[in-house]
Amino acid sequence: VKTVTVGLDARSYPIHVGRELLPRAGEYLAQAGCRGRVAVVTNPTVAALYLPALARSLSEAGLDAREVVIPDGEEHKNLRTLGAVYDQLIRAGLERGSWIVALGGGVVGDLAGFAAATFLRGVAFAQIPTTLLAQVDASVGGKTAVNHRAGKNLIGAFYQPRLVLADVDVLRTLPRREFVAGLSEVIKYGIIEDAELFRALENDLGALLAMNSERLTAVIAASCAIKAKVVESDEREEDYRAVLNFGHTVGHALEAATAYRRFLHGEAVAIGIAAASRISVEENLLAETEFARILELLAKAGLPATIPADIDRDKLVRKMEVDKKATGGKVRFVLCAGIGRTRFHWLEPRAIAAKLKDA
Amino acid sequence: VKTVTVGLDARSYPIHVGRELLPRAGEYLAQAGCRGRVAVVTNPTVAALYLPALARSLSEAGLDAREVVIPDGEEHKNLRTLGAVYDQLIRAGLERGSWIVALGGGVVGDLAGFAAATFLRGVAFAQIPTTLLAQVDASVGGKTAVNHRAGKNLIGAFYQPRLVLADVDVLRTLPRREFVAGLSEVIKYGIIEDAELFRALENDLGALLAMNSERLTAVIAASCAIKAKVVESDEREEDYRAVLNFGHTVGHALEAATAYRRFLHGEAVAIGIAAASRISVEENLLAETEFARILELLAKAGLPATIPADIDRDKLVRKMEVDKKATGGKVRFVLCAGIGRTRFHWLEPRAIAAKLKDA
Repeated sequence: VKTVTVGLDARSYPIHVGRELLPRAGEYLAQAGCRGRVAVVTNPTVAALYLPALARSLSEAGLDAREVVIPDGEEHKNLRTLGAVYDQLIRAGLERGSWIVALGGGVVGDLAGFAAATFLRGVAFAQIPTTLLAQVDASVGGKTAVNHRAGKNLIGAFYQPRLVLADVDVLRTLPRREFVAGLSEVIKYGIIEDAELFRALENDLGALLAMNSERLTAVIAASCAIKAKVVESDEREEDYRAVLNFGHTVGHALEAATAYRRFLHGEAVAIGIAAASRISVEENLLAETEFARILELLAKAGLPATIPADIDRDKLVRKMEVDKKATGGKVRFVLCAGIGRTRFHWLEPRAIAAKLKDA
Repeated sequence: VKTVTVGLDARSYPIHVGRELLPRAGEYLAQAGCRGRVAVVTNPTVAALYLPALARSLSEAGLDAREVVIPDGEEHKNLRTLGAVYDQLIRAGLERGSWIVALGGGVVGDLAGFAAATFLRGVAFAQIPTTLLAQVDASVGGKTAVNHRAGKNLIGAFYQPRLVLADVDVLRTLPRREFVAGLSEVIKYGIIEDAELFRALENDLGALLAMNSERLTAVIAASCAIKAKVVESDEREEDYRAVLNFGHTVGHALEAATAYRRFLHGEAVAIGIAAASRISVEENLLAETEFARILELLAKAGLPATIPADIDRDKLVRKMEVDKKATGGKVRFVLCAGIGRTRFHWLEPRAIAAKLKDA
């Protein structure tokens, strides 16, 4: 088991990464100060696979677990589901000293985290992420949210968990397509901050795709450590934390332009990574050889790297313009200045699209 | 104009108290860093009285004000109204750098503050409280919330404003009953922390009831300073901040037992202050002479001090038992150990009610 600490003074917390963590969750929670009643927020798919083992572990640790099941899918990450979660937390008799545990992927983590941030003005929160994406992304940084009709994650809070358990064993039941999509965030960490991680991915991709636990533990812990370092320097995304958006300006626009139905988040980000890298080459920041390595790694992982021809470029521009991070008509676009390094450029969405017209 | 600073490190903020502040709100906001688009959250009653003057001031300061009107009344301080506020904030085109200004009493402040805490994961927030209660209570400490069917303020966040403008002129249009109810919180501050404020109230009550601006400014600033000191020592109510609940255990139970229809909050608190003081005498913490001074001040202010005979004592007990601050069947009851000093006792609701049976 590797442990990454997210260092935020009084709100610091550990992320434990490794095998057989879920069946020992009760011990970890009790050791972190969890007592009495605990609400486990999850969805039916994950509950069927992992709730019995988690409930057993919590019970053995003397905790009184109550389950709060929310429907599966991003379309349910909204105020209505949140209201239903509050109702269930009240019925479960949660008090100020109680904990909420999120067992699931990004939707469960974001919504349960926001519920924890706001129920009784904040109760303790732990995450047991069950997707690769949630283990390397949502588990670090305390972004919680629900969606609004007008856009994703428009309502939320920065709220740090007390504990994260990233159990690599649970990734075995993850659909292959979701696992691969999660790899795009791992690849992103290598590109923006860590040439060594990028090389490790080039060397070990086969082992990762074969679900080698040791290699998975290593790259997940490395990814969390990179994101932790960024978040420690700028928790509320006032400046440098925006580096994590590498590949996401185009990625988010692609997701929005296709009504979040065509691509998994990681797939859209992979296309966005390729796009941002291509623009980095055009801006003379990235060598063609390194660009080729990026495209090759995406391809080896089985991730897409080109914007499908049928997607309307004007629609992408409009979606980038309404991005909640846009200011004065420009977006702070993250470019790669050689693998492991970045540069910010303020670009107009139309200029970004123009550079991609042949991509 | 008197200025009280709430000292919370990077989240410190000033409360300006005095005359003619609302017509200069634009200047204060601009000086605090507010730029561009501003959403003013208010209700129809307050809007009719003060929105034109505020809008003029904001416009003169170069700010682009958009109004967000919510219905008047505690029964609208809920998730449904919050959802409607989010919709309007989005339609108004608010960005991460935009501000929300609450113009109104406690309902507007609590709901607008929670919206500010959660819209785009937090935007800047300013308060222009228009009731005495909101000026001396909600303006300090950053408690924001909405109600749930199961109880008041069950959903919320700790979120500090950047600026508070407590304009004593606006109190002239406040219904007399509401003004008087607000005095009970001022009296509470004297009892728990400041014998000098208590004496000033005994001397100046006539001037306060006659709306003397200078005396109002002095006692409002003194009240805010006391609450600021308490909040600075324990922002998230992990321990000492609970002293502010003096009079509120019984007060909240009275409000809940009468479905929030019979008493204004301050009236229920006045009865709770008398009850907590009576118990303090029984526990040999408070002298009969000081208890008499408390009852006399409440009476001179025109506040109630006895639990009406028709209110079911068992119902009060049950309401105290479900208080969100109850733990293991006991509540941390605040007692007065001489005017200006307090003591905490863990008491069972049934024991509290028993001590009040002849009150």
